[in-house]
Parts: sequence; structure tokens; C-alpha cells
Amino acid sequence: MSSPTISHDSVRAVLWQGDRLRLLDQRLLPAQERSIDCTDADEVATAIRDLVVRGAPAIGIAAAWGVVLAAQRDPASLPGALATLRAARPTAVNLMWALDRMKRAIDAEADAAALAREAQAIQDEDLAANRRMGELGAALIEGGSGVLTHCNTGSLATAGFGTALGVIRAGVADGRIARVFAGETRPWLQGARLTMWELLRDGIAATLIADSAASHLMKTGQVQWVVVGADRIAANGDTANKIGTYQLAIAARHHGVKFMVVAPSSTVDMATTTGEDIEIELRSSDELLGYAGARTVVEGAKAWNPVFDVTPHTLIDAIVTERGVVEKPDAARMAALFGAR
Amino acid sequence: MSSPTISHDSVRAVLWQGDRLRLLDQRLLPAQERSIDCTDADEVATAIRDLVVRGAPAIGIAAAWGVVLAAQRDPASLPGALATLRAARPTAVNLMWALDRMKRAIDAEADAAALAREAQAIQDEDLAANRRMGELGAALIEGGSGVLTHCNTGSLATAGFGTALGVIRAGVADGRIARVFAGETRPWLQGARLTMWELLRDGIAATLIADSAASHLMKTGQVQWVVVGADRIAANGDTANKIGTYQLAIAARHHGVKFMVVAPSSTVDMATTTGEDIEIELRSSDELLGYAGARTVVEGAKAWNPVFDVTPHTLIDAIVTERGVVEKPDAARMAALFGAR
Repeated sequence: MSSPTISHDSVRAVLWQGDRLRLLDQRLLPAQERSIDCTDADEVATAIRDLVVRGAPAIGIAAAWGVVLAAQRDPASLPGALATLRAARPTAVNLMWALDRMKRAIDAEADAAALAREAQAIQDEDLAANRRMGELGAALIEGGSGVLTHCNTGSLATAGFGTALGVIRAGVADGRIARVFAGETRPWLQGARLTMWELLRDGIAATLIADSAASHLMKTGQVQWVVVGADRIAANGDTANKIGTYQLAIAARHHGVKFMVVAPSSTVDMATTTGEDIEIELRSSDELLGYAGARTVVEGAKAWNPVFDVTPHTLIDAIVTERGVVEKPDAARMAALFGAR
Repeated sequence: MSSPTISHDSVRAVLWQGDRLRLLDQRLLPAQERSIDCTDADEVATAIRDLVVRGAPAIGIAAAWGVVLAAQRDPASLPGALATLRAARPTAVNLMWALDRMKRAIDAEADAAALAREAQAIQDEDLAANRRMGELGAALIEGGSGVLTHCNTGSLATAGFGTALGVIRAGVADGRIARVFAGETRPWLQGARLTMWELLRDGIAATLIADSAASHLMKTGQVQWVVVGADRIAANGDTANKIGTYQLAIAARHHGVKFMVVAPSSTVDMATTTGEDIEIELRSSDELLGYAGARTVVEGAKAWNPVFDVTPHTLIDAIVTERGVVEKPDAARMAALFGAR
């Protein structure tokens, strides 16, 4: 594994190098900009599990390249590689979607070069989808609005530009968005560490808040939209996303603030009927019991660390995908855009 | 300033030593149990401002002893000492209440010994109030319930036993409370660092959650009551408390979970008409830009750090004080128990 420093104009979470996959190590940001080179599928799976790379679309893209690495090393290892990558994290459906797409190519007897073209297509399509979602989502926002986002949904979480953060980039660029707030997103601090870093590099003056300050912020009238990403969207519009998203949706409704979910169509899982059917990943309690090597909680204490939650479709005003926008989503409106199961 | 280690059976946030005030340094918990000795009122004010001692009742008690120190050193310094202590923190009214009470004793020409008796009375009455509130609050909770608390409202925040945590102690002791959850309470982590430490010492098996996981927890049905303290309660029942409390109240109402505020009558400020009139302390953004001593956010980033918020009385099911319980509080019900302004 090498650790080059990346330059400031190339935020690429996932970078294919022809015979290895370079992943920006998001565990170290913003203090250090280092990347890790993965040379086989197991290393990619470990990097996904350990949060070197995170964000539903980026996980899917990384896994697709992991399949390419397996094909390059030994085509006989492909079934095992698919299984290992699929098991890396349970909630984001983009991982399963990307692996299903690679599996179809394998089943069509694609060689390593053809699989690389498929992975590149997944990556390129994600970037194009993000640009399109940026336009569609920003168009929903009235001029002079403030927005609050959660977790990181930017270039670090995708092939580039971002989902919810893409909408924010587009909305700031065209002057619709006047104020940007980011929740720090405990326990892993994706908002504090990653979103603030991305936005500052773009020259977007965002303000960080504690996750628990969101309702107080909404009460001040400074926020008109909450804009978030998604890890899986069920057939009725119920949306799994980073822990805390559900709480923001409840608070938004209470204050008359609108709530937008932004995700590529690969995040929509029409085979999952409702949010109740989505597996919520529980991670180690250690993520809550300390930070950056410093233990903050007494020894012997217990913690519960679900890292996603489900926001019911009834609390969502718009789901924005590259295929179009579903306003006031429900099963019928979702099926109209994405087809029945 | 000396730094003795305290023994495990004597959690005393504020301990009078005859000629100095010993404060358990809550900034260092749970990693270190050290205390600081203050020998004049300025040192007490600094300790309050710097969060060596925190929690509305404990701040009031510490300030009362600060007045005693001023009287012992130089009675002529008393007016200045009162002003300095009063300015230490703006939101908790217990500080103003305790200083007003000491001022009345000064105006009645009390000497240092008489002022010490007054400070001791404030402290003793707080402990007695907490025991009484524990009984009254626990009686509202049905057997087998789960509770969620926020921040720290235990022995560390009071003269002992605690307000909301006193209700939880009493409810666990009589078997009404079967499950205890504590939010970590960013940015200062009072829940993670202090409440978990206190409860573990009491043998109460609490489970820590991220503040942002509260709604997801409520959805699982494991919580029947949110039980919190208060820094100031307005004449209509609107309650200022640690940032995040308001969000919990919104989420509780959404899920049909009951919401209880527990605070001594010294926290009730009938001179403040509604929560809109309560000054909300803004603390340094540094509290959000780092974590446990490590810088976590990119240099140049901005943060907004209000450390309290206001929960409207309409979201509160019961305000528990040592004088009695106000159910479904409003201005009329508050006036019935506490008298008009």
C-alpha cells in the first residue's frame, strides 16, 4: 500500500490505476490526505468495511473495481470476490446493484478488460447522474434559501460532484442557496470532517452545527430545506440514510421546512417493499466510546450504535434522481418513475 | 490549587472546606478524578465559566460559596464578587437565584459565618429537593418503562442525587424503570463522559447513544419517557435546557413518548414570561471543531455553537419540582403552583 498526497484539485475518492484501485483514506481526513492502493478484491472489501471509502455510490464503484482486480488476478476467484464484496456492508443497496451489474457482465463471459469498461461505465454514469440531480434538485429550491445537510454526500461519497452536496453545489452556483449548514454527523463525523473540507475547498462558506442543534436552527428560520443523500430507497419511498436523518425529517416537518432526498436510481430498491425491510447496520460501540484514540466514556459502559435509520416517505417532500423527481413519494408515484417490481 | 483524587463513594461536585471551595474538575472526567480548590470568588467564577463545575443547581451552589469566600477575604469585595459571579454564565437562572439569596443575606448584614450558613442551606435544600423530585417523578412512570435522558443531571450537576437523574435513580430503585438510555450530548459530551460514569458507579446499566439516534431508538419502542433537567423554566412552562433537548421533545411527541422536565423550584423564573425571553448562551466554535483534544475539522471552517435551546411548554407532559408536579404546563398551571409574578 502506498500513500501519496493528492493535490487539491483532484478530490477523487476512487481512482482506477490500471492494475490497482487507489482509495483516498477518508478515515484520516481532513488532517491527512493519503490514499491506499488495493491490489485485490479482499483489500477492497476490507477498505469498504473499515470506512477507508464510504458513501453509497462510492462503495458501489469501489466494489465494481474490486471485481476487475479479481478478474485480472484469477477469473476463478470471481465468485468468491463477489460474495466477499457483497458482505462488506449491509445497508447501502448501491453495493449490491453494482455487483449485480458486474455479475451480469461476468455471466456474459466478459474478460478483465470488458469488466474494466463496465466498472468505468458505472463510475462515469454516477458522475453524470450527480450533475443531472444537481440541476433537478436545485430547481426545487427558492432563491435566498438556507439548507441543512447531514453526513457527506459529495465527491468523497460518489464519483464526483455529489448527490445532496451536488444539489447544494448547483444551488449555491446559481444563487438559489444563500446559507449552508452541515450537521457534524456523529459518531464518524462525516459532516465535520468531510463535508466541511469539501465545501471549504469549493469556496462555499458552510456553518457546522452539532447534530442536536438542528431543531434550534430550524426554529430561527434560517433553513428552508434539509437536503440529504440515501443508502437505500424502498419501493414506497421510505429511505435509509445515515443515523440522524430520520430525526431531521421529523424536525423539518415540525417547522415547515422541506425535506429532499437526493440519490441516483441505483439507490432505489424496488425489490424492498418498505423501509421496515431494510437491514440497519450496527457498528461497534467503540465508535461512540471514544474518538481518535482518546477514550471518552468510562470503562465498562455500553453503547448502541446503529449507523443508519429509515425516514418514512410521509416525511419526504421530494426524492431527486437522475431519472426525475418524485414529489410527495409513495408506492404509486415511485412505481410510475421506476416501474413495478 | 490542589488536585486530590476523590474516593469512589463521594461524588461531590461542590465541597466546602471551611476556607476554600473544592470543585471536582468535570472537564477531566471520566479519565481523571481531580479537583480544584478555589480560594476567592474570581476563581469560582472562572471555574463556572470554564465548565470545571456545570449543571444549573451546582452552578448556583458554587456561586453561593464564592460569595462566602469574598466575605471571608474582604467584605468590601462583595458587590464586585456578586457581579463577577452573576456574569459567569447567562442561561441557568439558578445562578442568579442563589446570588439573589446571598445578596439578601448581605443586605441583612450577615457576616461571613452567617453567609456560610446560607450557602450550606442552599446546598442542603437542593439535595432534599432532589430526593423529593425523585419520588414525584418516578411515580409518573409506569412499571417496565424505558427512559432516555440527555446531558448530565446527576450528583455532578447538583448537591447530590440529581434532578432528572434523581428520577431515574428512584425509578430504577423501585423497579419502574427497566431500561436507561443516555444521549452523548455533543459538543461537551456530558452524557457520554459524566452520566455514564455516574450511572455505572451506581450499578445502573445504561446504554449510550449518539444524540442523532434518539428518534430511531424511540421508533423501536424501547423508550416511554424522555426525562431531562432544566436551566431555566419560564412562567408559561417553556424550558431552556442543554442543546438537543428541544429536538428530543419534538421526536418524543412524534412517537407518543412522554416528556418530563425535572428541576428544583429555583430553576423556575416567573419573571420570564416565555422561552423567547431567555438568553441562549453561545460558546466558542472550538467546542465543535475538535473532539477530545483532537482537531477534527478543516482549518478555516465556521461553526455555530448554541449550548442551550428552548422547549415550548406544549411539548412537555410534566414539570417536576420539589413543590409538586405541573402536568401539561401552561401559564395558568404554573402560576397555580408558583404564584404570579
